[in-house]
Amino acid sequence: MKSHTVYRTFQTEGRRELIRITADVQSAVDDASVTEGMVLVAAMHITAAVWINDDEPGLHEDVMEWLDKLAPPSWKEPANDVARELLPDPGDYRHHRGGEDNGDAHLKNLLVHQQAILPVTEGRLDLGPWQQVFYAEFDGRRPKRLVIKVIGE
Amino acid sequence: MKSHTVYRTFQTEGRRELIRITADVQSAVDDASVTEGMVLVAAMHITAAVWINDDEPGLHEDVMEWLDKLAPPSWKEPANDVARELLPDPGDYRHHRGGEDNGDAHLKNLLVHQQAILPVTEGRLDLGPWQQVFYAEFDGRRPKRLVIKVIGE
Amino acid sequence: MKSHTVYRTFQTEGRRELIRITADVQSAVDDASVTEGMVLVAAMHITAAVWINDDEPGLHEDVMEWLDKLAPPSWKEPANDVARELLPDPGDYRHHRGGEDNGDAHLKNLLVHQQAILPVTEGRLDLGPWQQVFYAEFDGRRPKRLVIKVIGE
Repeated sequence: MKSHTVYRTFQTEGRRELIRITADVQSAVDDASVTEGMVLVAAMHITAAVWINDDEPGLHEDVMEWLDKLAPPSWKEPANDVARELLPDPGDYRHHRGGEDNGDAHLKNLLVHQQAILPVTEGRLDLGPWQQVFYAEFDGRRPKRLVIKVIGE
Repeated sequence: MKSHTVYRTFQTEGRRELIRITADVQSAVDDASVTEGMVLVAAMHITAAVWINDDEPGLHEDVMEWLDKLAPPSWKEPANDVARELLPDPGDYRHHRGGEDNGDAHLKNLLVHQQAILPVTEGRLDLGPWQQVFYAEFDGRRPKRLVIKVIGE
Repeated sequence: MKSHTVYRTFQTEGRRELIRITADVQSAVDDASVTEGMVLVAAMHITAAVWINDDEPGLHEDVMEWLDKLAPPSWKEPANDVARELLPDPGDYRHHRGGEDNGDAHLKNLLVHQQAILPVTEGRLDLGPWQQVFYAEFDGRRPKRLVIKVIGE
């Protein structure tokens, strides 16, 4: 069995950002010389995520608006009454008592997950036509790491 | 290390459908002649999901009602005020500007995930007594593919 | 390729409980003598979850409060109007017609997932500085199993 591990560091300018990383994952597979196997892509932080979905800007805005309602930040006004009621009662995350303000980013990480595992077949990521891999940053502006691990033959 | 890859195509009659695929996954493991390893089951589309849960019809209805509130379609009336507020403001998904109407299916895919990975022990899916594998279609009525990838010895 | 499988049984005193299991997962990797590979950690039940996040008590309370709104139990009063509207209409889960009362635990399992897969590099779980592995029980007070499966070289 072969294995190959690659780390990438992201330092986004904005607090939240979506970065397409499909080519990075394919590069790691190429460098591993693995033709049949699996590749794990995982954020090494608890306030970021990895997901596989469409690379369509309208959808990306939809997802971010929706995540801010389901897992609302407390550093800005809630989007509406549902977002307000999904905040802790009363008012702010217990997690913020230590000085943090990223409670919502932890919840988003739990909701959409910090990892994806992809099949590798004949040396290629075995994805459908619209599937792209994304690193989703929910609390950026500082260096954060991602691990890509390939195993196979 | 052995590996074995199987594709299945689903064309559901309804827009949304839940299909139990545990036996298909076990068949792929049998054909791989793998006794110890892992099997990845992944939708190759961004509007479907794979999950492991109970095969209980009441629960399936509960899940579908709940997902339609958390990730509401815009092609039917929102179920209630919470569903209405979880829709984009105002009214419809940006993703639909290109003529699509399946924005909700993308969000459901992110919420319950397009993949599961299962342990294989002594040639069997190493699942608990109530665990069944499901393909969850959220935007069917057209051919959609699933990949099952087994690796191990 | 080496493989190693470990089972753990939890019987929590409370209905819901969060148990840190990072050391158990590392022990399984040590016992497998795997230096490069992956480890799958999966609840064998459909009313429990496995996740990777921060070991911070305030956050844990935040998560549990939030999950009780998004996937509300029907054995206690809904936390607020959003939780009430996310319950089935009218009133109770169809899943409870068979005498169960754990519908919410099934939904929570779907939301935060029953499994995580971790990279193993140089014999160690390849996690970021704040990442801890948790078993999340949503319907305890009876014996429930977890499987840890290591594969690699």
